[in-house]
Amino acid sequence: MAEVRIFGLPGIPEVRAGDDLAGMIAAAARGAGGLEAGDVLVVTQKVVSKAEGRIVDLATVTPSRFALDLASQWDKDPRQVEVVLGETKRIVRMGHGVMICETHHGFICANAGVDASNVERTGTVCLLPVDSDASARAIRARLRAELGVDVAVVVSDSFGRPWREGIVNFAIGCAGIAPLLDYTGQHDPAGYELRVTAMAVVDELAAAAELVHGKLARTPVAVIRGAEYTRGEGSVREMIRDAERDLFR
Amino acid sequence: MAEVRIFGLPGIPEVRAGDDLAGMIAAAARGAGGLEAGDVLVVTQKVVSKAEGRIVDLATVTPSRFALDLASQWDKDPRQVEVVLGETKRIVRMGHGVMICETHHGFICANAGVDASNVERTGTVCLLPVDSDASARAIRARLRAELGVDVAVVVSDSFGRPWREGIVNFAIGCAGIAPLLDYTGQHDPAGYELRVTAMAVVDELAAAAELVHGKLARTPVAVIRGAEYTRGEGSVREMIRDAERDLFR
Repeated sequence: MAEVRIFGLPGIPEVRAGDDLAGMIAAAARGAGGLEAGDVLVVTQKVVSKAEGRIVDLATVTPSRFALDLASQWDKDPRQVEVVLGETKRIVRMGHGVMICETHHGFICANAGVDASNVERTGTVCLLPVDSDASARAIRARLRAELGVDVAVVVSDSFGRPWREGIVNFAIGCAGIAPLLDYTGQHDPAGYELRVTAMAVVDELAAAAELVHGKLARTPVAVIRGAEYTRGEGSVREMIRDAERDLFR
Repeated sequence: MAEVRIFGLPGIPEVRAGDDLAGMIAAAARGAGGLEAGDVLVVTQKVVSKAEGRIVDLATVTPSRFALDLASQWDKDPRQVEVVLGETKRIVRMGHGVMICETHHGFICANAGVDASNVERTGTVCLLPVDSDASARAIRARLRAELGVDVAVVVSDSFGRPWREGIVNFAIGCAGIAPLLDYTGQHDPAGYELRVTAMAVVDELAAAAELVHGKLARTPVAVIRGAEYTRGEGSVREMIRDAERDLFR
C-alpha cells in the first residue's frame, strides 16, 4: 500500500542573511539519518528569503506620493506600501485595504508577497526570493553533492485565494520535479479519456508540507517521502497561466 | 518529531447509486485494522455523488435555447451545458470555452462541478453532492457508531484556480473539524503579532490526500494520521468568502 510520510527536518537553526541555507539543510538531513532518493523537501520562502538577504529595513525606505496616498486611505505604513509597489509589476485588484499584485515573477498574491511576520526585527519586512527556482536548484545540487541523493526541492509560500477564506501553501520555486502531473489522454477506469486534467502536484506538495511546517513552529523544512511525481528539471514558471488565457486578471 | 502519514484505504469496491458508502468505508476501515482517534478521512466527491445518485443521464436532458447557443459556440454537448446551468446560481466568468460558475452551494468552479470523467457509463455526468457537509457528517457518525472512534471527514473535489495552471483538491464538505486554523493574535517567534492568518486546513488536507488518491487509481478514501487540527462541528460554508469582501466575483 502506497503511503506518503511528511515530517519536519529537525535541527535547522535560526536563519540569517548570508547564511549557507543549503549547507544547513544538508547538515540537518545528515543529522536526521539522511534522505532517500525521491524525497521532496519543501522549504518555506521565509528562510530562503532570509538567507538571501531579502529583508528590507523600513527606516531606509522613502515612500512615494502614491504610497503615501494608499497608506493613508488604508491606515498602513507608507514605507511598507512603497516596498510592495517596488515588488509589483501590475496591481490586479485594490480594495478592502488589500492590494492583489502581480509580482515581477508573475505570481499574483496579496502585497506582492511582502510580509512583516516571522522576521527577526520589527521594522523590517521580507520580500520573495528573486528566483525561487534557482534557490531550489541550489539546495538540490548541494544535497546531491553532500549526501549523494537525488531529491526534489519545492520553495513554498502561503497565499490567499479568491472566493475562499484562509491561506494555503503554494509552490513559488521547484527543482527536480515536473510541477504538473499530466493525465491528459489517459483513460479513467470506465474508459473515459481524461481531458485537460493536470494535477498541480507542486502546489499539493506545498500544501501537504504546511501540515508539519506550522505557522508558529520553527520547522522551515518538511520532507515528503513516498509521493508520486515526475522527475524533471522543472520550473514554477510552468505554473503561471498565460495572461491571455486567464479570466481573472 | 511530529509526523503526518497519508495512505489510501484499501477495499472500497466500485460505488453505485444507492450504495451505503458510510458502511463501505466502515467495513474497509475495519479490514485495514481500524482507525485512530483524530484521523482525517478525505473522501472524493465522485464516490459521494455516485452513492447519493447524483448522476444524470444526458439522454433525459432537453437543452434550453441558451444552452444550445453556448454549446454551439464552444463545440460542447448542449445537454451537458444544460446540466451545468441547472447547477449554477451565477456565472462568474465565461470565455475560452470555460464557464466559471457559482454553484447553489456557493463554490466557484468550472462547469459548476459537473464532470463526465470517472462515471460508470459514457453519456452520463456527475453532479456535486447536494450537501457535502451532511455527507461528511453521515460518514463520521457511522464510523463512530461502528468503530467507536472519533475522526474528522473531508469531502474533496479538484478545482482549477485563477492565475495558476493545474488543478488541486479543495474541501467541499467537512465534519468534526474546524475548517480554518486561526493564528490571529498569536505571536511568531520574534514576538510579531500575526494578523488575519488563518490557514485553510481543510483545503490543505484535501490537497495532501490527492497525493494518494491519484486520478486513475481507485483510491477514493485517504486516511491522514497525525495532522494538527481543531476539532469542532465544522462546515465548509465557513470557507466561502462573503461576496462583499471578494475582489474577484
